[in-house]
Amino acid sequence: MGALKNDRLGACYLGDGQCEFRVWAPHAGAAGVRLQAVGRPPLAMTAEGNGYYSLRMENAAPGLRYFYALGEGMARPDPASRFQPAGVHGPSEVTDREFAWTDKGWINPPLQQYVFYELHVGTFGDAHTFDGVVDRLPYLKDLGVTAIELMPVAQFPGDRNWGYDGVFPYAVQNSYGGPQGLKRLVNAAHGEGLAVVLDVVYNHLGPEGNYLREFGPYFTARHKTPWGHGLNFDGPESDEVRRFFIGNALYWTTEFHIDALRLDAIHAIVDTSARPFLQELATAVRSESGAYVVAESDLNDVRVFKCDGLACDSVWGDDLHHTLHVMLTGERDGYYADYGSIDDLAKAYTGGFVYAGQYSKFRRRRHGNSARGSRGEQFVVCAQNHDQIGNRAQGDRLSTLVDLESLKLAAGAVIFSPFLPLLFMGEEYGEMAPFLYFTSHGDADLIEAVRRGRREEFSGFTWQEVPDPQDERSFLQCCLTPEELWTPAQRSLREFYRELLRIRRETPALAHLAMEQTEAIPLGEETLLVRRWCEQGEAMLLLHFGRDASSVRAACPAGQWRKVMDSFGDAPERISGECEITLARRAFALYERV
Amino acid sequence: MGALKNDRLGACYLGDGQCEFRVWAPHAGAAGVRLQAVGRPPLAMTAEGNGYYSLRMENAAPGLRYFYALGEGMARPDPASRFQPAGVHGPSEVTDREFAWTDKGWINPPLQQYVFYELHVGTFGDAHTFDGVVDRLPYLKDLGVTAIELMPVAQFPGDRNWGYDGVFPYAVQNSYGGPQGLKRLVNAAHGEGLAVVLDVVYNHLGPEGNYLREFGPYFTARHKTPWGHGLNFDGPESDEVRRFFIGNALYWTTEFHIDALRLDAIHAIVDTSARPFLQELATAVRSESGAYVVAESDLNDVRVFKCDGLACDSVWGDDLHHTLHVMLTGERDGYYADYGSIDDLAKAYTGGFVYAGQYSKFRRRRHGNSARGSRGEQFVVCAQNHDQIGNRAQGDRLSTLVDLESLKLAAGAVIFSPFLPLLFMGEEYGEMAPFLYFTSHGDADLIEAVRRGRREEFSGFTWQEVPDPQDERSFLQCCLTPEELWTPAQRSLREFYRELLRIRRETPALAHLAMEQTEAIPLGEETLLVRRWCEQGEAMLLLHFGRDASSVRAACPAGQWRKVMDSFGDAPERISGECEITLARRAFALYERV
Repeated sequence: MGALKNDRLGACYLGDGQCEFRVWAPHAGAAGVRLQAVGRPPLAMTAEGNGYYSLRMENAAPGLRYFYALGEGMARPDPASRFQPAGVHGPSEVTDREFAWTDKGWINPPLQQYVFYELHVGTFGDAHTFDGVVDRLPYLKDLGVTAIELMPVAQFPGDRNWGYDGVFPYAVQNSYGGPQGLKRLVNAAHGEGLAVVLDVVYNHLGPEGNYLREFGPYFTARHKTPWGHGLNFDGPESDEVRRFFIGNALYWTTEFHIDALRLDAIHAIVDTSARPFLQELATAVRSESGAYVVAESDLNDVRVFKCDGLACDSVWGDDLHHTLHVMLTGERDGYYADYGSIDDLAKAYTGGFVYAGQYSKFRRRRHGNSARGSRGEQFVVCAQNHDQIGNRAQGDRLSTLVDLESLKLAAGAVIFSPFLPLLFMGEEYGEMAPFLYFTSHGDADLIEAVRRGRREEFSGFTWQEVPDPQDERSFLQCCLTPEELWTPAQRSLREFYRELLRIRRETPALAHLAMEQTEAIPLGEETLLVRRWCEQGEAMLLLHFGRDASSVRAACPAGQWRKVMDSFGDAPERISGECEITLARRAFALYERV
Repeated sequence: MGALKNDRLGACYLGDGQCEFRVWAPHAGAAGVRLQAVGRPPLAMTAEGNGYYSLRMENAAPGLRYFYALGEGMARPDPASRFQPAGVHGPSEVTDREFAWTDKGWINPPLQQYVFYELHVGTFGDAHTFDGVVDRLPYLKDLGVTAIELMPVAQFPGDRNWGYDGVFPYAVQNSYGGPQGLKRLVNAAHGEGLAVVLDVVYNHLGPEGNYLREFGPYFTARHKTPWGHGLNFDGPESDEVRRFFIGNALYWTTEFHIDALRLDAIHAIVDTSARPFLQELATAVRSESGAYVVAESDLNDVRVFKCDGLACDSVWGDDLHHTLHVMLTGERDGYYADYGSIDDLAKAYTGGFVYAGQYSKFRRRRHGNSARGSRGEQFVVCAQNHDQIGNRAQGDRLSTLVDLESLKLAAGAVIFSPFLPLLFMGEEYGEMAPFLYFTSHGDADLIEAVRRGRREEFSGFTWQEVPDPQDERSFLQCCLTPEELWTPAQRSLREFYRELLRIRRETPALAHLAMEQTEAIPLGEETLLVRRWCEQGEAMLLLHFGRDASSVRAACPAGQWRKVMDSFGDAPERISGECEITLARRAFALYERV
């Protein structure tokens, strides 16, 4: 199969007017490069074997626009296009890979130090672009997160989209600023000491502008996904499909200096081969670039991060989110029906998965396996993320569902967990704007199908209550509130998050992520005592979910315990032995052994 | 989920006229037992929760025939029927589980000692029944195999079928002799010191008489198989589907004293759950009954027998077969295109899989992973089996394709391999009858579809050349030649096999199965030297595939080597050091260190 690094695919500008084009089109019979000038016949490419065609062009320059012409077919943009200046249906553009990097000294931090800040480029900054994010990096650095996680930036139709409708895996969204814009952002983030995580989608391509199937067997009817045919990672000619996507992963982590990839919904990748695609991908990313691979999976399957499984570094741990969400909101719809007890929370803290093999009412089958013995950094946890907010009919953030005390409690529960915390943009100051599902497709039928699908998904709402994804206002509503308009309470919540992140960093027992050095003891049905320890110290966290203040009797391990912080202000400063502690409603208190 | 042993499903005769009926029909609304007497309304069953219905009947007796009636639906036979006296569309019959077992002292031999003899009950013995097999057990015992492997016996339509069209996993084929007949066979086999292996099909049900989908979500549209929707082992309500099939496995290994199960084509079972169905099945079979689980898989995936994979004991190793077949016949059609060099054979001997990650031309992708470090008994190998013969247009056995010398060479290559050998019935005396694909469906459209499908599968043949599966003559042609009609050459081949099996048993270095104590060195392009050793001894096997006699120069490890046997009669009796050995065409010679 040769090297997996796929940097000879697509249009490669070599300098001095030389450009090399290469495309995989195993069933095409012939392939050519069609430059944009109308009426000129395509320049014939040379078959290289293995289904590849190539062409060396003289007198080319970055900025040159082209299509591929296959056999008798229409001219189509390059599957490995680096840039689609006029969107998904337009020509591909030759780019210059040169960039004036200034991050030579940058070292990807150990995964244990990651604190993710998930953001959507279009709605995060004023400019709706990468450069708009750059402006806010000092703010993020000051907040105390260590990594920004970008929702997908691969070219999607129009300029308003979460990014999961991307159809050119190698092209950086034109409206965000294209490849140079992304490089500026990564370079600036590294300059601020922030890592950059990129969300990539290897389970499907979007419904509009997906020309890949005209080029080769990228998809297979053997596997179904929620979006149609699955990607072909295990059928005939799948080696080259894998190479395309693994090459894509390496493209980001090498050419763009991306520090970690977040793989979208890997449970939708069906692959029965003896050497799983994702294992191959994660192994290649680690060995070729040193970047991390974080998987989103709803399988609760420890094999996702086992070496002889899919070999990912970490997995999104939704169970902790769901448990917290139910305990804070009382909601029990859909998958929330499976969660909500203090025992679930204890299980999440010590086992990673709440569902580790037991029966799930929502799934109507047993679910998951045991993650005992895993490391804390193998789970990414959150109180909110784009899906948990955006997949609600009205995109309600937690801040619109519960009170300030509950938000603080959620923050403590996540940030002081033995896992990697993820914040969703705006969470840190209790942003009240929704995060709605939004699109800007160009195809009228598709627009209507998405609109109708959305309305049908939320049967408990009238159709007027479900915002139209295609309506620009659905997008504009989601843009974050500028800092100068925050309320005092929002400013103070931001300070609170900042303090939590500082304490996480500076308290050895919290910075040390070890599920095996974590104990979670329910004190009644509303309060959890979480002990965490390491060689350098020991911490004790009391989390109280009751709607009323409550006194709990906690048996402190021998010695004196000093309060590090609490979310309500009047927890006792020192405790020891068997003691009675009064906790305010929806509150936590953190102690450290003296 | 409770116990997996599912002996309370179906009709359970409890003695004293008491019979308990239990059926899983989660969406039925109501269920009843309809006795055969026409016009009587069904007896209402009681909902037990979890989708189960039950009824305790007084005054019942074995032999009572019944259907289930679900909601407003038609009366249908029991999915867990133990017996279908009138075939797949008729009523189910209450059976008596009592049987006068006389195999109390029977101990399942260690897997390392298994030598499989695969047979099809309908065509093996004169009577086309289990009792017909019983008559031949002394012959098999004398031959030296240690286990008979029965092609599937679950009730299929009509009385002529390979068995893979079974539709009542718990019912023993009526025309073979039903459950009592199978018990007589197992009991008699154990009496002769032979283990019994049963081929079971958990990847699909046959096309005719499959009423399971009317009872519950046994199938899922999420997964495709070559036979339509996959079985539901990972979707909603899959726990009970699993229980049905795992209970089935345990039914055979406990109530029928079956010693090992052969799982048909597990690559057609798609299961994305965190706790794979097959892992659960294999673990339950091992712990509840001590029986072995052998999987047929074309994935070349070592995870099939890893504990944290599917946890099977052993897997069919097709690569050795394919390599041998090509070396002996020169055929290169279909998957044979991938095999045939002496290096492939060396790889098969020492690695189990020939394809352990490299590119397969036939599959048009890389295939397999490495099985290095596996144990020899984790592979079952053969020179022929029902599929390799029967999936040819004219069902040709190897004996009709190559000469006697080649048959002997194949026998030596398989029986002296470090794996578990499998013989296909009649192979040991070079049976000339074909093993054709045959059916006796009742549905005219299906008959025509199967006939057409078969003809289309073999495009290199005219349709007259492809026997009609439904024609009774296709079945009758496959019945083995009675011993009294064998030619002298056939009798002598049988003696040859008997001798090979004796030597395998009695030669320590051959009886000891260890891939890591096996070395395979090509001597040119037609000859392989295989060394095998253990603490008790050392053996050296020379396999010569050339169409002409050839002298090879072999470097014997230090010491004197004594000939144990050869297939042609004039290999030197003793060899040592660097020596020249002349091997006849298509021949082997086996030496043991003195």
